[in-house]
Amino acid sequence: MIPEILLIETEHRPGSLATVLGILAELNIVIEGLSCVRRTEEKSTWELTVDVTPDQSKVLATRIDTLPNATVLGKSDRVFKRHKGGKINMVSRSRLETLEQLRDLYTPGVARVCMAIHENPVLATTYTNRSNTVAVVTNGSAVLGLGDIGPVAGLPVMEGKAALFHELVGISGVPILIDSRDSTVLVETIASIAPSFGAIQLEDIGAPECFEVEEALSKRLSIPVLHDDQHATAVVVLAALLTAMKELPLNLKESVVGQIGLGAAGIGVARLLMAFGVQNVLGTDLREESISRFESMGGTGCDLKELMEKADVVIATTGVRGLIKPEWIRPGQVILALSNPEPEIEPEMAISKGAAFAADGKSVNNVLAFPGLFRGALDAGATAITYRMLIAAAQCLHSLAPKDGLVPDPLDRDVHKAVTEVVSQAGS
Amino acid sequence: MIPEILLIETEHRPGSLATVLGILAELNIVIEGLSCVRRTEEKSTWELTVDVTPDQSKVLATRIDTLPNATVLGKSDRVFKRHKGGKINMVSRSRLETLEQLRDLYTPGVARVCMAIHENPVLATTYTNRSNTVAVVTNGSAVLGLGDIGPVAGLPVMEGKAALFHELVGISGVPILIDSRDSTVLVETIASIAPSFGAIQLEDIGAPECFEVEEALSKRLSIPVLHDDQHATAVVVLAALLTAMKELPLNLKESVVGQIGLGAAGIGVARLLMAFGVQNVLGTDLREESISRFESMGGTGCDLKELMEKADVVIATTGVRGLIKPEWIRPGQVILALSNPEPEIEPEMAISKGAAFAADGKSVNNVLAFPGLFRGALDAGATAITYRMLIAAAQCLHSLAPKDGLVPDPLDRDVHKAVTEVVSQAGS
Repeated sequence: MIPEILLIETEHRPGSLATVLGILAELNIVIEGLSCVRRTEEKSTWELTVDVTPDQSKVLATRIDTLPNATVLGKSDRVFKRHKGGKINMVSRSRLETLEQLRDLYTPGVARVCMAIHENPVLATTYTNRSNTVAVVTNGSAVLGLGDIGPVAGLPVMEGKAALFHELVGISGVPILIDSRDSTVLVETIASIAPSFGAIQLEDIGAPECFEVEEALSKRLSIPVLHDDQHATAVVVLAALLTAMKELPLNLKESVVGQIGLGAAGIGVARLLMAFGVQNVLGTDLREESISRFESMGGTGCDLKELMEKADVVIATTGVRGLIKPEWIRPGQVILALSNPEPEIEPEMAISKGAAFAADGKSVNNVLAFPGLFRGALDAGATAITYRMLIAAAQCLHSLAPKDGLVPDPLDRDVHKAVTEVVSQAGS
Repeated sequence: MIPEILLIETEHRPGSLATVLGILAELNIVIEGLSCVRRTEEKSTWELTVDVTPDQSKVLATRIDTLPNATVLGKSDRVFKRHKGGKINMVSRSRLETLEQLRDLYTPGVARVCMAIHENPVLATTYTNRSNTVAVVTNGSAVLGLGDIGPVAGLPVMEGKAALFHELVGISGVPILIDSRDSTVLVETIASIAPSFGAIQLEDIGAPECFEVEEALSKRLSIPVLHDDQHATAVVVLAALLTAMKELPLNLKESVVGQIGLGAAGIGVARLLMAFGVQNVLGTDLREESISRFESMGGTGCDLKELMEKADVVIATTGVRGLIKPEWIRPGQVILALSNPEPEIEPEMAISKGAAFAADGKSVNNVLAFPGLFRGALDAGATAITYRMLIAAAQCLHSLAPKDGLVPDPLDRDVHKAVTEVVSQAGS
């Protein structure tokens, strides 16, 4: 669906707007918003926001133009409009109006601050923004569900993360794009620029580089390094699972959990569940080497059929629509079919086949986890983000889930404050 | 001098404040500011801002405390206070309040923007902040006049540059610290992260790495790369020279110019003067390899004595106070002794020995040049910053110099707009 904004001019005749809305009704288009932006003696100009399919988009304006009292002046795509000029900006924290300010903030004043940090490096935490700055690093090899579209095409996502960092927890996020699929290049480059940052967020980096890069950097650097797609996603999945199973006669730690898809997200989920205390985690993937990697991490590899037969809890992160056949569902199973926008099985279908609980990935958004994880780690001065911190974040999100939802509202600032606090405590 | 802020409480007795100011007078301390910040029935609290030497700082508070009606409640260093928490912040350009905004700016909306850029990379200019973002890169090997204090201690300067970028021309400056003095590491690292930025500003990198790194990156990248200490400084020096020589019977292009000190700034100045059309540029340095480098760039190496004898215009950027002996000055010479805070020769002394013009480096601040150079280059979509652009910037600054000064006010936004415009024209 494309959110479109149409600018429509109508003459002041009774029913002129109604006929426009009639066309929307005929085309089955839902109205998101309508407001009058200009009014003269003879005409009104309306801003009409709609969610349309590409097909609806093509005919809508033409149909409106056939009306005697209405004209489409223009249309724009709300998403593209909102991305225009980029989503972030590096700003000065104070205005610069006087020479006194210039002399304090820049030369000659800044020299004393530099020397103070040179003599006592820990002062960088007080007198620079470094410990509030997180690099959001990608090579663009696994952007959203879009695949390897390259780092520059991935930049809108990185800017989005940086915007969320600022809005939700006041962190300065800095997008860093690296045009390489070579783990060594990624590790060396990130390690070289690491002194600039308080923490590193790896983002939309495909498997297997993502595992190698995270592991090498975590060993080498004394600041937190976190691969968002693995761990922030896993935190939200664990939170959702805890909420889903609250009312069920199943205990997560004692359940058999089956993870379908052992890419970044799947491996992240499986490892967090093992760290949480789940004894029996099965995993499957089309690629042999993914299953081997999973087994080297303590999981049990198997095929899809065996997994569906044995697992009490099934989590799917494959990106393959309809992968789970309805007839495979066993009564009482918990099914999280998380691929977006189209799940491995529709929750309604799974329930109709006897699943005790089923959900798709719409509400499992890692924006619930990563801001508080980093804010908490930075506040605690942590040198790494540990499973203890990830589990604390998941339990916190679970505890804040509303009665009618798996996880809390991602825009509720109090949620991020709460996650920050438990992560900071767990990391101190 | 340290700018200090004292918080002083005085009782409401006639003359209680006057006795405080009397002590300042006795100690020969200049008052920068005085304001009442709180007043009760019996007492007033004053914020007193002064510029003091470390010695004055030690005795001032103690002396005030001996007064019967005044107490020092505390003191702070204005510079450090202004640097607290760092000077910059990455912010979201729009608020994030509704799920609609989240879905447009982040997933799922952002996917369409990513794909649009993937299909047509030039759209990154429209839909991301990349072409408004400049990396401010240092290895901390030559920070201000402080030498090799390392990248983290240099961060306050990089944040200062980023703050100036934002305040003066709206550029997002991103400090990047690299802990290496190896040119290859610097080049490889910067090249690897270059897709993140619209341009690269090299900053406070010592010689000879600075030359190697700039040259290698300029060849390799298709975005502007500029070593601030070389070229932005040179632009301001050329502007100052043009202004200084306006009233003199000397033509710059036909003059013999002598550059004392062939580090980053000196080489930058000498090369820009040659590009401007000065036929005869002499240079000297204590290091043989610096003279060789200078000669390979088209200059004529010589010793200090010969340079002082032959040059009509002498520019010194050595960091050595009093290097130029008064008896070496020849009548009619133009002398720019630019080392801060203490020049190679005091301008008054040079004038008294017959110099036609003499100035020190106090007003030669590269903040006059670098914001407009980068803004202009980005606006023009230039792939490099050329001598043509540098010369245009210098001529513009010269044209805007007030009657009583060498260069215009660095905080005048119109100056930066004017530089931006001429650079953008020269770069198109």
